Amino acid sequence: MTYNFTNDYSEGCHPSILNALINSNLEQQNGYGEDFYTQKAITIIQDKIEDKNADINLVAGGTQANLLVLSSILRPYESVISAETGHINSHETGAVEATGHKIETVYSSNGKLSPDKIIPILKRSSNYHSVRPRAVYISNSTELGTIYNKEELTDLYKFCKKNDLFLYLDGARLASALSAPSNNMSIKDIAELTDIFYLGGTKCGALIGEAIITTNNSLKENFKYNQKLRGALLAKGRVLGIQFFQLLQNNLIFKLADHSNLMALKITKALESLGYSFLAQSDTNQIFPIFPNNIIQILKKEYEFTIWKSIAPDLFAIRLVTSWATPEKVVDKFIDDLKKIS
Amino acid sequence: MTYNFTNDYSEGCHPSILNALINSNLEQQNGYGEDFYTQKAITIIQDKIEDKNADINLVAGGTQANLLVLSSILRPYESVISAETGHINSHETGAVEATGHKIETVYSSNGKLSPDKIIPILKRSSNYHSVRPRAVYISNSTELGTIYNKEELTDLYKFCKKNDLFLYLDGARLASALSAPSNNMSIKDIAELTDIFYLGGTKCGALIGEAIITTNNSLKENFKYNQKLRGALLAKGRVLGIQFFQLLQNNLIFKLADHSNLMALKITKALESLGYSFLAQSDTNQIFPIFPNNIIQILKKEYEFTIWKSIAPDLFAIRLVTSWATPEKVVDKFIDDLKKIS
Amino acid sequence: MTYNFTNDYSEGCHPSILNALINSNLEQQNGYGEDFYTQKAITIIQDKIEDKNADINLVAGGTQANLLVLSSILRPYESVISAETGHINSHETGAVEATGHKIETVYSSNGKLSPDKIIPILKRSSNYHSVRPRAVYISNSTELGTIYNKEELTDLYKFCKKNDLFLYLDGARLASALSAPSNNMSIKDIAELTDIFYLGGTKCGALIGEAIITTNNSLKENFKYNQKLRGALLAKGRVLGIQFFQLLQNNLIFKLADHSNLMALKITKALESLGYSFLAQSDTNQIFPIFPNNIIQILKKEYEFTIWKSIAPDLFAIRLVTSWATPEKVVDKFIDDLKKIS
Amino acid sequence: MTYNFTNDYSEGCHPSILNALINSNLEQQNGYGEDFYTQKAITIIQDKIEDKNADINLVAGGTQANLLVLSSILRPYESVISAETGHINSHETGAVEATGHKIETVYSSNGKLSPDKIIPILKRSSNYHSVRPRAVYISNSTELGTIYNKEELTDLYKFCKKNDLFLYLDGARLASALSAPSNNMSIKDIAELTDIFYLGGTKCGALIGEAIITTNNSLKENFKYNQKLRGALLAKGRVLGIQFFQLLQNNLIFKLADHSNLMALKITKALESLGYSFLAQSDTNQIFPIFPNNIIQILKKEYEFTIWKSIAPDLFAIRLVTSWATPEKVVDKFIDDLKKIS
Repeated sequence: MTYNFTNDYSEGCHPSILNALINSNLEQQNGYGEDFYTQKAITIIQDKIEDKNADINLVAGGTQANLLVLSSILRPYESVISAETGHINSHETGAVEATGHKIETVYSSNGKLSPDKIIPILKRSSNYHSVRPRAVYISNSTELGTIYNKEELTDLYKFCKKNDLFLYLDGARLASALSAPSNNMSIKDIAELTDIFYLGGTKCGALIGEAIITTNNSLKENFKYNQKLRGALLAKGRVLGIQFFQLLQNNLIFKLADHSNLMALKITKALESLGYSFLAQSDTNQIFPIFPNNIIQILKKEYEFTIWKSIAPDLFAIRLVTSWATPEKVVDKFIDDLKKIS
Repeated sequence: MTYNFTNDYSEGCHPSILNALINSNLEQQNGYGEDFYTQKAITIIQDKIEDKNADINLVAGGTQANLLVLSSILRPYESVISAETGHINSHETGAVEATGHKIETVYSSNGKLSPDKIIPILKRSSNYHSVRPRAVYISNSTELGTIYNKEELTDLYKFCKKNDLFLYLDGARLASALSAPSNNMSIKDIAELTDIFYLGGTKCGALIGEAIITTNNSLKENFKYNQKLRGALLAKGRVLGIQFFQLLQNNLIFKLADHSNLMALKITKALESLGYSFLAQSDTNQIFPIFPNNIIQILKKEYEFTIWKSIAPDLFAIRLVTSWATPEKVVDKFIDDLKKIS
Repeated sequence: MTYNFTNDYSEGCHPSILNALINSNLEQQNGYGEDFYTQKAITIIQDKIEDKNADINLVAGGTQANLLVLSSILRPYESVISAETGHINSHETGAVEATGHKIETVYSSNGKLSPDKIIPILKRSSNYHSVRPRAVYISNSTELGTIYNKEELTDLYKFCKKNDLFLYLDGARLASALSAPSNNMSIKDIAELTDIFYLGGTKCGALIGEAIITTNNSLKENFKYNQKLRGALLAKGRVLGIQFFQLLQNNLIFKLADHSNLMALKITKALESLGYSFLAQSDTNQIFPIFPNNIIQILKKEYEFTIWKSIAPDLFAIRLVTSWATPEKVVDKFIDDLKKIS
Repeated sequence: MTYNFTNDYSEGCHPSILNALINSNLEQQNGYGEDFYTQKAITIIQDKIEDKNADINLVAGGTQANLLVLSSILRPYESVISAETGHINSHETGAVEATGHKIETVYSSNGKLSPDKIIPILKRSSNYHSVRPRAVYISNSTELGTIYNKEELTDLYKFCKKNDLFLYLDGARLASALSAPSNNMSIKDIAELTDIFYLGGTKCGALIGEAIITTNNSLKENFKYNQKLRGALLAKGRVLGIQFFQLLQNNLIFKLADHSNLMALKITKALESLGYSFLAQSDTNQIFPIFPNNIIQILKKEYEFTIWKSIAPDLFAIRLVTSWATPEKVVDKFIDDLKKIS
């Protein structure tokens, strides 16, 4: 039987969430996020980011969060800037464009954006013949497993403010980023250095759910109208509220992310000692080692993963993703197997 | 402590669903609806409707289902016809229009559509200066608790086919409709007498989830692309699959609907014997009794419900909704309370 | 050979416009409305409405003007209120909905809106489950030839301001309205009693062209971006500028409207003296006399017009439209013909 | 007084068009393209491309044509492939995205597309997580003045057919392309080697107007509905019909293009003999010579043009555009001026 390293949503959710669902199951709660648990989860997040006025709304999935946020904050003639590798550009079937907005893309070898990469786009958009860039989309961790440090995010945020750009952070794997060994930011820093971001649950131990957190006052108005019109307002909002309440108590979400990062790091270190190199430097739960094809073929008999990119003839970067549920013994066996065939 | 008759999504889900989530929790499953449970649920539905080629996709909520279906089946210049009371027209914040399509509305006292109500709309749309009606939206049960019988749906479907209209049925409460005492249809009939419909889970015992069932071949192509671009494709599709698998086994969903209908019916009969009348005739889980204001004020001290419509000075129709979770003793107490004050 | 009373765009344009096109033809002018003539036309309009800060943009046609204005001023979850007979609702193939916005309609026997008709719509839109009405669409003259007087428009505008609604006036036939015998408004009044409106050229003597006039400061920002993205910004903006410059000099547009109104009025008076009645009371260039079918059949041999509405068995309202180009002798002959057969 | 080489829409139109407008001015014609002249123009185009079944519709401008065509032929999850320099990508304020569709871009040094440039895009779009490329957008002549030869277009069209892609050609300057010395195609070839294209009038001697020509049967259905809903159906369609009727008679449009090409070519040859080089090789009416900054500063005193691109410190490519109206004596003076300062 094979083990699946393809993604971090192959399992269900942390067992304590199921317990919380059971314990609250027959309570009558208001719909649409006006339930006790959602309100509690909101308060905890507001406390963590030390912003009592943050507007917080829970939705079911990441593509939904992205299209909802961007269609809410952009006027029809405004665009969003993203790395080419950005999830909204590469992996969401045109969901943002379907709401009417152009994504302007930038090449980035490590999946991250910085002011120097954005400046050329601002320069070419001078008048009403071009879309007006108004938002910058980043993900942390990125689609390549890399993360922003505080200095980079500060630079980017200051640049955005100076240029009248909203900074939006896709945090599908934010817990993993903030738990990475090389990370030097808290979730409070994230809140202060962006205009709007989401803290992802689906890929960090929840069944489903992402918490959209808006700190910029100008973006808060009537968000729930937008949420409803995009089909992103669940009747049983409690299902999301209970999960985030549970994930945020005792910092469970960050503990789960810690585990997933450690599992990936263990593989990384082993591969490094075996002399393998990587497509991008990652200490989060996505890693991209480079293997010759014959190694890949042997691994495929026992493990599932994505062949990410051709590097040279007969040489490929693969993607391995660990999660809160990845057993350490599977990681150890994977390392052993690799040692044998390397 | 008050009891809430406001809607049928105040509680969590049937306990067996939580058990199923627990039992499957650590299994690794493919994402995006390609998991074992979703495929199993699909097969059960295909069996029930005796159509092995039905295209079936699970989504999180009803508004999402409606906007996804209608934006998928309509061309930019095509409209959908709905009763004024239709959920897409009255209660979804313009979600369908946000995908670019006009809803053409018809007055209907009981929330149902029939060919004679649709003909005037077809007549006024003669050429390229008007939208082209291409779909008919109905709900069963309707927003007023009423249901279609087989003869009515057959008439409507034949009319649609003759006039090149797709018939789409919003089945948020389809289980309730098909379990109603006056119902004479099976889910197989529904499948044969519509082009596309959904079987609702959220309001019938699931945490979240609606199963969109497409029987018209011309509407099946690339549905999953549309699902993804509307943000309606969950990474952990298993969460939906497990629920529908559970709800469909041993016809659990219909048994739950049966209970909710019986609870409403018990109230209806008691009210009738007390001499009260109703806004619409319903034997499903939504009923609309008409009360003088003083009765309403007394009831409000112990029960929550929606004041639906002003009928006359000092006289209002209220909406009472029961669910799979409504305890019979609450219903009995409600009836007793009413007897005392009537 | 028949004469065509079907509409007011059967002919080309007033000859002086063609002369102006010839005289300016080889001048080099900037594109996109930045030419001398457009700027001149803008200044004249600003002078007429005594508002130097009015934002004025010229577009090619009426449906384009409507979809551009409404998509510019509404947020995704906001709707526009219109009479059922409103052009945007009945005759534009869902152009407004195609930009993502719901039109909420009201029945009105004379095609006009007033606060009492709007209040029920505002009442039913209480929270994020419904679209939020944000604009009111009216036309003057209406699709039934009727016009607003100053008292009515003042009431409506005050009501809109009190309820945070933008008032948008479709002026496809505004020149005709302002030239009607019963009119008591100037174009300055129109500017002061709306937030945004357009002065139509196509139906009042131009080849093509409508002037969109924005007086509400909050609606002015980046309008040209919206204009471009809807395909409504002509490279040779001069073509529109020259026409409006010509139409506005010496009030030509109002003189032309005057003629078209007079021709309709002459017919109206003759029909009244012959005992015919009308669907709506109009002293503009659209009239809706009611004839028995046999009269209509005889008229059809020599005249083209639209059969508008069935009034009773064998009795129909027809629409007759006159224009700046309608020869008085045709009108006289039409009246004579009617006298003979009545 | 300066001369303006900034674009090919600084003047009005060929005088014969104004004559035709005068001569037809008082004729009563049907609206919406159902007039005699539009029908005549359609027949001439059908004759020229030897396709009696071609569907032909006239619209006012190029951005409008592009957004109308692409929104008509694509399903919501489908994208269009374009060169980065493509007008739809760089110069239309997100008009295509505003209709809901992603543009997938390719770098091309000469503004042209070929199968090898498209293949990588097709490869990365494998399933429902990515948009599905369905159309290829090219312009001829391109935004860099280059043109396709018959072999290139044949290759591209065959590739498109093999890969289920519609080939759409933006012909804003098609007359110029087909009149270029190096061209080896007829308009019939264009019709046979694309699925849909437009023949541009605005930049080739008309006041306004582009003729959209659809040869692929699957794209013809209900095009006029789409035209109306995008605000692209003029009431006085005659204005477009008369112009195309005039431009097509005796091949006037190609004669005008011939003149504009010759004027550009005369400048090109003079500059080559003076030793200047060019950004792209063009024998159409747009040329991109490279000048040192001091030359540009001198030229700017007497001529207007666009500084297109920085080539090196102190070295820039400028864009010079000639038109049907460019006087040869201005061209001669420009060449003389350059000789003096070079």
